[in-house]
Amino acid sequence: MEENQGVKLLGFWVSPYVLRVKWALKLKGIEYEYIEEDVFNKSPLLLKLNPVKGQVPVLVHDGKPIPESIVILEYIDEVWKHSPLLPQDPYERANSRFWAKFAAEKLQAYAWEALCSRGEDHERAINASMEALEKMEKELNGKKFFGGDKIGFVDLVAGFISYQLPVYEEIVSMKILDSSKFPAITNWINNFLNHPLIKEELPPKHKMLAYFSNRRNVILVQNSSNK
Amino acid sequence: MEENQGVKLLGFWVSPYVLRVKWALKLKGIEYEYIEEDVFNKSPLLLKLNPVKGQVPVLVHDGKPIPESIVILEYIDEVWKHSPLLPQDPYERANSRFWAKFAAEKLQAYAWEALCSRGEDHERAINASMEALEKMEKELNGKKFFGGDKIGFVDLVAGFISYQLPVYEEIVSMKILDSSKFPAITNWINNFLNHPLIKEELPPKHKMLAYFSNRRNVILVQNSSNK
Repeated sequence: MEENQGVKLLGFWVSPYVLRVKWALKLKGIEYEYIEEDVFNKSPLLLKLNPVKGQVPVLVHDGKPIPESIVILEYIDEVWKHSPLLPQDPYERANSRFWAKFAAEKLQAYAWEALCSRGEDHERAINASMEALEKMEKELNGKKFFGGDKIGFVDLVAGFISYQLPVYEEIVSMKILDSSKFPAITNWINNFLNHPLIKEELPPKHKMLAYFSNRRNVILVQNSSNK
Repeated sequence: MEENQGVKLLGFWVSPYVLRVKWALKLKGIEYEYIEEDVFNKSPLLLKLNPVKGQVPVLVHDGKPIPESIVILEYIDEVWKHSPLLPQDPYERANSRFWAKFAAEKLQAYAWEALCSRGEDHERAINASMEALEKMEKELNGKKFFGGDKIGFVDLVAGFISYQLPVYEEIVSMKILDSSKFPAITNWINNFLNHPLIKEELPPKHKMLAYFSNRRNVILVQNSSNK
């Protein structure tokens, strides 16, 4: 492969933002070269390819860098049109974009807050996570995936619920994914994790437990020294 | 016009999210019925059309509701293809989406924080706003608009910089829009505000000054009682 041809992905093993993109590339059958970054010690390559934010993921296609996971998913869907991630109908596309944004900006943010807080803040974040999850439960409404019969845009963005949220729950002994309250979400998690292409791209649980326990401790110390 | 036909927009006069959509509809020449909402006392109509978030803007097209300003802009561009807001090339589209997200999630959030905080938080938010603005200054790079010769997706999302940020500056006597530091942004503001379709859809300055002074006071009281 020549220097400026093909597809490369700069990532970090546990990033849910990177995993969305890995899954999308797999689902589309796009071959790519994966470059693991150390996000705590950013490489000159990462800073060159994403000078504005310096974050992973960055997709590099024929030498051109595209940062930001949601932007990358839209790009992949526009360039490789087979096995579409978004529906074709504009109203359905809008609905998918709305729920992807909701999963990322509400549920993901609250769940992270629930992991990295104590006391009242922790309780509030658990409640907010469950309220957000209840809305996603209704949106699923008996479907196998948010995308219908197939994994789509919303499923990829919401994917962290399936493999990362249970790790948060274990670390701080909390319960957000209550299967009696969220039967459709529980079912969706099973469908998602059992998909052959998803299954083969999941970080090892013991490594996630160690990583997120450590992140939690670092953030709790930072927050207490800021008060 | 029949009940379920045509285009309606539920909005709130000062919301920058609503204004993006108004501008997009104007630029495309799409006629619509505007329904002013009281966001502090939400109507049953708003809660019915956006049950998940209960926020404006909501675009209603042929009876179907679409919430979330960025999602609405994408929808408008897909349904009414003339005078495109996004470029046609996938890489350029990705770049526009990246900068729109950056303007909304970085600059807009920091500027709001600078308006509604005191002391160290206030200083930090001013610095963060200026750092974000510096990156947007570089992206403009001599162009008339972020969209090139014409107003596009990024311009609409970043539009708050032109008419709302100066109001924040006046209320708290701060300077973010330094024309010697940001000549390209200053030029862009002039180009943007002088566009005939933008000019006719701007909230009156004296009303914005009163509104945001009041919002600031309410939020400062809330924040101090939370501590």
